[in-house]
Amino acid sequence: MRAAVYTGDPTLIVEDRDRVPPGPGEVEIEVAYAGICGTDLHIRHGAMDHRVPARAVLGHESSGRIASVGEGVTNRQVGDPVTVMPLRWCGICAACRAGHTHVCQTLKVIGVDIPGAMQGSWTVPEDVVVGLPADLPLDVAALVEPTAVAVHDVRRSGLAAGEKAVVVGGGPIGVLIARVAQAQGSEVVLLELDPHRQATAEGLGLTVVDPSRTDVAAYVADWTSGAGVPVSFEVSGAPAGVRTATDVLGVRGAMVVVAIHSEPRLVDLNQVFLRELSVLGTRVYTRDDFEYAVRLVADRQVPAKELISRVVPLSGASAAFDALESGGGVMKVLIDCQDAS
Amino acid sequence: MRAAVYTGDPTLIVEDRDRVPPGPGEVEIEVAYAGICGTDLHIRHGAMDHRVPARAVLGHESSGRIASVGEGVTNRQVGDPVTVMPLRWCGICAACRAGHTHVCQTLKVIGVDIPGAMQGSWTVPEDVVVGLPADLPLDVAALVEPTAVAVHDVRRSGLAAGEKAVVVGGGPIGVLIARVAQAQGSEVVLLELDPHRQATAEGLGLTVVDPSRTDVAAYVADWTSGAGVPVSFEVSGAPAGVRTATDVLGVRGAMVVVAIHSEPRLVDLNQVFLRELSVLGTRVYTRDDFEYAVRLVADRQVPAKELISRVVPLSGASAAFDALESGGGVMKVLIDCQDAS
Repeated sequence: MRAAVYTGDPTLIVEDRDRVPPGPGEVEIEVAYAGICGTDLHIRHGAMDHRVPARAVLGHESSGRIASVGEGVTNRQVGDPVTVMPLRWCGICAACRAGHTHVCQTLKVIGVDIPGAMQGSWTVPEDVVVGLPADLPLDVAALVEPTAVAVHDVRRSGLAAGEKAVVVGGGPIGVLIARVAQAQGSEVVLLELDPHRQATAEGLGLTVVDPSRTDVAAYVADWTSGAGVPVSFEVSGAPAGVRTATDVLGVRGAMVVVAIHSEPRLVDLNQVFLRELSVLGTRVYTRDDFEYAVRLVADRQVPAKELISRVVPLSGASAAFDALESGGGVMKVLIDCQDAS
Repeated sequence: MRAAVYTGDPTLIVEDRDRVPPGPGEVEIEVAYAGICGTDLHIRHGAMDHRVPARAVLGHESSGRIASVGEGVTNRQVGDPVTVMPLRWCGICAACRAGHTHVCQTLKVIGVDIPGAMQGSWTVPEDVVVGLPADLPLDVAALVEPTAVAVHDVRRSGLAAGEKAVVVGGGPIGVLIARVAQAQGSEVVLLELDPHRQATAEGLGLTVVDPSRTDVAAYVADWTSGAGVPVSFEVSGAPAGVRTATDVLGVRGAMVVVAIHSEPRLVDLNQVFLRELSVLGTRVYTRDDFEYAVRLVADRQVPAKELISRVVPLSGASAAFDALESGGGVMKVLIDCQDAS
């Protein structure tokens, strides 16, 4: 079978590999689709070389079917449609003992620290497998993982039904956060600079504001009768996004840090003090988040299908990374791994 | 009577003023002591000129006795020992309606926005007055207000009995936070650079670590068996303090921003993300915090008396500000206003 392999900044090659027969408690997945995430772009440019092993197979957003099962696996059958919750925790550190396994002190992410989904055949422990409804198209199902991120972000924020939130950044995660928040009855404004992403989000029925054309502080003050919003989501990764996500908050408001900020950012701690704000880190998801994400995608409560801009073959992975990095015009790109098995 | 008056960066003069007879619902306090706070130092250097009125009387840490009462005041008698919770809120903004009057969107702090305690006679609304036990010395009672700050900080942190915390900065507020946390059964390590403050805190039975001599990250890792602490208090106001207060936290830990940071600070949002940290702003106190602080001070559960480094007459106020700004050798300085009435 074939796999997309990271061989060092900025190279992604496709190479032939032997399939890994599933051992006891493992399953082999015939991968259908693997999504490209912002983290994958960071990895390809060496930003995570301290974690990523040599000649790593990327991909943590996936869908596929069970191809074979190892000894002792009884609850998965060959042909079952599945996705993977790509986390491995130790179970014994302070975080795990406190029940926060998703932020285990030695958390391994499959597709980052361990070989991922961008290959034809993928062998993983059975307990990371999450079943999918039979009628859910597998391309759409590849959006379950980013949806689970959005579910976790909204849960962690404490945003309630009827409350208002600002989402800073309208890529796939920003749009999914907005829709997950709407699905629970919250009102959302999405801030986005890129015209294509603005149009996509507006086409999905979201209220979109361009911060280069609109005074966001004045807009939010008007929208909230001067109170500010209780929750903002910083999904842009940009210094200006951090400022905006702080500025729009009302008293006791919470800024949820969703994006990866590879460098320390200036945060206005005087505003944090004056209004008793919270800045909340949020990372991946729990099993509950993931299973709820399956339902949201299956019930079309989030626009998973609509976020797929392009599907490329495994041989086109490197070019697809380039296209995503060039920015405009693309939301989610999937790699079709069905010809790679 | 006489009052200490801020006339613009960096001048504090003492001038004669007429006493203000209490109107309906007001009381006149014969001030005994007024403490000098870090905020007062900021004010004297113009950092809060946008809020502080011309020729302002500073002072929001106080003790005294009721000198006279205005019409309709029935629950205070002349001679009652009192302190003041120096907050005025609007009661109608979104924060007040949500019950967070202490972070009212137009909060006025007496001694900042409104004339404060550094005068012989001080007229205030009766509802800001807080009664004191008859046997509590009035110099010690002037420490109730900073103790209330510490009570609020510890409450907001969520720190539980039996849990560990790091306090970054060993001035009066840092020491009071440490002791309030100990009083509820938490374990505390205090970080402080200044030798005098180190010695004072150690003399009060606190565990003190000098971050210029000790690898704090290694110390905390050892102290917590690698888990990190659930709560840190940033009381230093320094950029390095923000870094340290972030570094020591374990998964889901909370950094409480106590100090005033007049400029935005670099915050390592990648750590915030990876460990799902919280950064929590905290400001002043509620009435519950304030009344609990009276009990802590009266019961000698916090070292109010021991924190008083010096008591100076009103005429020495300006020199006392200078001494505090020069740093070492001083914790809390009180202004004795008993000769100014």
